[in-house]
Amino acid sequence: MESKKIKIGLIGLGTVGSGVFKTLKNFDNVEVVKIAVRNKSKKRNIEGLDESIITDDAYEIVNDPQIDIVAELVGGVSPAFDLIKTAIKNGKHIVTANKELLAKHGEELFNYAEEHNKVVLYEAAIAGGIPLIMPIKTILAGNKINKIKAILNGTTNYILTKMDVQGASYTDVLKESQELGYAEADPTGDVEGFDAAYKITTLATIAFGKRVKIENVYREGITKISPEDMQAANEMGYKIKLIASAEITEDNKADVRVHPMLISKNNPLAHIDYVTNAVTLTGHPVGSVTLSGPGAGEFPTASSVVGDILAIASEIGKTDYLLPMMRCQHNENAEPIDISETRNKYYISMTAKNSLGVIGRIGKACEDNQISLASIVQKEVSQDNAAHIRVITDVCKEKDMQKVIDIFNNDSAITSVNSLIRVQV
Amino acid sequence: MESKKIKIGLIGLGTVGSGVFKTLKNFDNVEVVKIAVRNKSKKRNIEGLDESIITDDAYEIVNDPQIDIVAELVGGVSPAFDLIKTAIKNGKHIVTANKELLAKHGEELFNYAEEHNKVVLYEAAIAGGIPLIMPIKTILAGNKINKIKAILNGTTNYILTKMDVQGASYTDVLKESQELGYAEADPTGDVEGFDAAYKITTLATIAFGKRVKIENVYREGITKISPEDMQAANEMGYKIKLIASAEITEDNKADVRVHPMLISKNNPLAHIDYVTNAVTLTGHPVGSVTLSGPGAGEFPTASSVVGDILAIASEIGKTDYLLPMMRCQHNENAEPIDISETRNKYYISMTAKNSLGVIGRIGKACEDNQISLASIVQKEVSQDNAAHIRVITDVCKEKDMQKVIDIFNNDSAITSVNSLIRVQV
Repeated sequence: MESKKIKIGLIGLGTVGSGVFKTLKNFDNVEVVKIAVRNKSKKRNIEGLDESIITDDAYEIVNDPQIDIVAELVGGVSPAFDLIKTAIKNGKHIVTANKELLAKHGEELFNYAEEHNKVVLYEAAIAGGIPLIMPIKTILAGNKINKIKAILNGTTNYILTKMDVQGASYTDVLKESQELGYAEADPTGDVEGFDAAYKITTLATIAFGKRVKIENVYREGITKISPEDMQAANEMGYKIKLIASAEITEDNKADVRVHPMLISKNNPLAHIDYVTNAVTLTGHPVGSVTLSGPGAGEFPTASSVVGDILAIASEIGKTDYLLPMMRCQHNENAEPIDISETRNKYYISMTAKNSLGVIGRIGKACEDNQISLASIVQKEVSQDNAAHIRVITDVCKEKDMQKVIDIFNNDSAITSVNSLIRVQV
Repeated sequence: MESKKIKIGLIGLGTVGSGVFKTLKNFDNVEVVKIAVRNKSKKRNIEGLDESIITDDAYEIVNDPQIDIVAELVGGVSPAFDLIKTAIKNGKHIVTANKELLAKHGEELFNYAEEHNKVVLYEAAIAGGIPLIMPIKTILAGNKINKIKAILNGTTNYILTKMDVQGASYTDVLKESQELGYAEADPTGDVEGFDAAYKITTLATIAFGKRVKIENVYREGITKISPEDMQAANEMGYKIKLIASAEITEDNKADVRVHPMLISKNNPLAHIDYVTNAVTLTGHPVGSVTLSGPGAGEFPTASSVVGDILAIASEIGKTDYLLPMMRCQHNENAEPIDISETRNKYYISMTAKNSLGVIGRIGKACEDNQISLASIVQKEVSQDNAAHIRVITDVCKEKDMQKVIDIFNNDSAITSVNSLIRVQV
């Protein structure tokens, strides 16, 4: 007896869609029956693709009664959100790689799916091919996860790695990355941290079991990082990475943010280079686990989309189907903390006139604001009788640090505060 | 309406058992109803433990009709195997951390469970708290995994890390590790690679979907690694690690082994230090992912045991229950390859009389046996007119390498072949 094949509709046949189509061909229990594309007349060289299943109307897929699972692989809020809701209303399960939609409308989406007794899986939306979301929901289900530190954006990690290796400027490396196709023509979404912020919003929500709202995620990009910062970090035993971070504070608030950070070379994340992604999850009882691998690309992303499709396919047709573990039930909202109230260590780089009292005034400003210094290094710059001063603080409050930066900015002996970068605690 | 609690029986209340008991207390849907221990009169300080549920007869657990899931946490083949089979026969699902039993009797065990429509889960048996087995069976199910490189034994990784950091000898570090409790009084199981061999046998079986037999796993321990090898590796850009490796060769054989290996510092495994474990899985479509974390310990291991228990608990009571993904169906045997037929790169360390022709003879012996040299370094040792010679070869056949080592051993100018260690390709 041949068992019924599960029918799949793909929305999108770009890089990821092609990888998904090619991978699904290896499985007998599933069949791609319809594919929606933007431009039907585009020439596609995909082996085994019957072009008669291609449509340029995605609603043909979400309204097709024979389709069991819709994989949405186009991204963005519109029309993806309406397509997915229509599909759910029509009795389909959803697999999506759409990090923006999940971050902006996750709550509405999961509630809608729950009302219709359907699941929405999204392993591919966060950290590409790295097994992450399903492990959190299944084998790590015994844990209370309270901390995430992650590199979730390949473009910025590529740029920072190149800056580090080549000693080159952000602008030069960005240009080179754009030429090589590692960065987009408009790189804002990556370099300003929006992409990583979308991902950490959803990842923190699922890991903490509390809904994190994107508007409460603090975000800072990598455009101000200088080759001097890179070199200074190296000399002090650190690497600079764009870190997506989420933590439940002692008073049970959700501290979720994306910003550059000095990471100790003893930390596995310091060795995650180029487009690789990595996520360190910390919780009890497991301790810390670090999962790393390709964060994007045709086949790695397809691995996660296909994993989700096969998981749903294995459940369809059962009487009591769909693992409770596959659901996303977290209607409790996480209480946010403002960045000004967070506690961090800081790296500060300044240029000062080489006058005697400046180190003393830096020390006093910090002391007056409850900030201890872990290290301070002054290097003379011969040409212009100026000094480069680098400070690393102990843990202190962000708002106290900002007060001190104001003092530095108003100190006539300090020519400029060049950088303020948080340091891994 | 209160839903029925799933009843758990624990066999073993040592380090792991205690962690499992403490963790399961946080979950309302499961209840530990009986615990078997070796010594009932031993004083136990475990909060919330009702000592009346403790027995010293493990058969009371496997024969108890109310118990749904038995967690076997004592290890070894006997009596664990009989206990587990009895439990399965009596309708219970099994969660086990028993790597030796799985490696030696996995086939019989899984077939027996299958006949009785029960599952055996074993996330904790391999790499402790690292999410590994369930991800392979679920979210990575779309992949054909063909290569595994892993650090699966914390004791040997601790010893090698200490040797590297301190420049100390194997014997000294072993002694220190034993005093600190990181190595057992009889360290054979760890330092000779048995523990890692058990783990890679089962891991390769599940990842490749073909049964690997423990007797076909080549095994070599770390006892011959010298501080000089460590230093030489460092100078050449490598670290020495005990690597559990499994690969499907081009002619579809399973090359599974445990031995020391020079790992490039560019490889994530080179940075896995002390008792941390790590596994790099390579396959299509995902590419390579590396999962790292605590490989042992009370709570990390409990994380995996509890994850398995909760996964089974969420399925019990359903009409069509138990994910096909949870099954271990791999009755096809992997065709083994003898170590002599494998292809590797090698690091060779020799001491020679400082005579003119020896480098030439080394080169000729290699050339005569189809071995190309990637690098050769000779360093004079002043005291005794001897030279230390280090060679790294290109990829060649193990049996050709062994022939060359025979030639070196019979060369009167070569005082000794000190080390032969395979190098990551």
